[in-house]
Amino acid sequence: MVDCMIIGSGMAGISAALTLQANGKSFMILGTDALSEKISKAEKIHNYPGFSDVSGQTLCDALRAQLAAANITITNERAMGVYPLSDKFGVATQEGNYYEGKTVLLACGVEGVKQIDGETEFVGSGVSYCATCDGFLYKDKTVAVLCTSKRLEHEVAFLAGFAKKVYLIAMYKDVDIALENVEIIKKMPKAIVGEKRVEKILFTDKELSVDGVFMLRETVSPAVLVGGVAMQDGHVEVSRDMQTNLVGCYAAGDCTGRPYQYAKAVGEGNVAAHAISRYLSGIKE
Amino acid sequence: MVDCMIIGSGMAGISAALTLQANGKSFMILGTDALSEKISKAEKIHNYPGFSDVSGQTLCDALRAQLAAANITITNERAMGVYPLSDKFGVATQEGNYYEGKTVLLACGVEGVKQIDGETEFVGSGVSYCATCDGFLYKDKTVAVLCTSKRLEHEVAFLAGFAKKVYLIAMYKDVDIALENVEIIKKMPKAIVGEKRVEKILFTDKELSVDGVFMLRETVSPAVLVGGVAMQDGHVEVSRDMQTNLVGCYAAGDCTGRPYQYAKAVGEGNVAAHAISRYLSGIKE
Repeated sequence: MVDCMIIGSGMAGISAALTLQANGKSFMILGTDALSEKISKAEKIHNYPGFSDVSGQTLCDALRAQLAAANITITNERAMGVYPLSDKFGVATQEGNYYEGKTVLLACGVEGVKQIDGETEFVGSGVSYCATCDGFLYKDKTVAVLCTSKRLEHEVAFLAGFAKKVYLIAMYKDVDIALENVEIIKKMPKAIVGEKRVEKILFTDKELSVDGVFMLRETVSPAVLVGGVAMQDGHVEVSRDMQTNLVGCYAAGDCTGRPYQYAKAVGEGNVAAHAISRYLSGIKE
Repeated sequence: MVDCMIIGSGMAGISAALTLQANGKSFMILGTDALSEKISKAEKIHNYPGFSDVSGQTLCDALRAQLAAANITITNERAMGVYPLSDKFGVATQEGNYYEGKTVLLACGVEGVKQIDGETEFVGSGVSYCATCDGFLYKDKTVAVLCTSKRLEHEVAFLAGFAKKVYLIAMYKDVDIALENVEIIKKMPKAIVGEKRVEKILFTDKELSVDGVFMLRETVSPAVLVGGVAMQDGHVEVSRDMQTNLVGCYAAGDCTGRPYQYAKAVGEGNVAAHAISRYLSGIKE
């Protein structure tokens, strides 16, 4: 069991990892070798101290070189659930693995896309965040998939293998999926409605009957990821040393609130790593 | 009058300046072209994201290049007093200048050297933080000077031009001052004592009669710098968005507390700059 499970491979997660390593703590980063879509796609970064007007790609390259030099690897898995246990945390990934850590750091960013009306209400009653976890439930049924990233397109294809019909609500450019049972829609839905379970997805100009709705976002909302974590205005509530309301659970970066800035994320990751190290020193082995 | 007076040219101050500039706000940085003694003297920096095992000097060079590219200059002056006025702040410098800003950001770091017993008690009654401000008061008198940095040695020489006798308590290496009336002492004093004014400075093994004591530190304690700013355990008390208890006065970096880390300072400078920008947008021009 590692000292800390870091959920997210953006600036906050990387900053925390470097500092945990300096403090002699073990950790696992669940994220992506691409680090962060937000960073890599940034055209110009002006105000991150030390880098003068660089592209996001240049900063990403520097970060990857630093991680390689420090022998820090990223586990290319997506956390789908974080479970607070008595004195540790369990983390289940979309890839079907389960890990445990003495602490957990939420560094999962924020999704630019808003929640849809009804989304939270129907979680577990037709709304799912994980195609590979729940796809088989929709064999020969009709599903809508709201997908925010091209990187997640393969999950749409995976769903199309089960479902009779897939409405792909694609919130990204260059949609590249051509399957008979996939219909592409380029409008944001207004709401998910139903009596006990999801029945329809509503748009301003039409409605579609569906059996389920998949929300495929790069980032899962912390509230969905960790049951019971206190939120405020859509962000994880934290103290000055990045503690959440759950003992052993910390948060850093965009998920804790604005400003959504690299510098802030880096600072919070660092502060969280120090707080986590102090917390761990009080835990009996 | 600038939008923000930034006190300090370390990571927090630089981060704030870059972000204030991005937000279209005007500012003045009171600090030094050397940026920060702490950074420039760092042998190796491991955990600042983007720089893999660099020396402090390398990071300083990168920061200076970034500031130059952004046309940001540093005013080589030391703030000696910050005065909250009705809707602005006055800042007096050791160099004898006075500036005003709509807001002030304390990014002045922390001094590793502890306060001496009696120091705060005798401020204005024999304890001074500024040789050029108060030196003339000690013409033909005896003073002790606690000096923590070679960079401030010229102030000792300045004092020796007035005083009959100067005890230089040198808390730095390579003391390079050879004046007849300057006696070098390499021990930390225990306390400053006196009835109404400073009379003696005490060491574990001796005591010296003095008329005044000068504390020459790279960093002036925020509590001395800004009357009325709320402190906690020697640090400026701040909210999550870096506000102090004084309206329009913000703080970032080491002066707000541990961990004393570049990443934290950079993050806090960024957050403070955003909070300052929001605050300014509510001020009538």
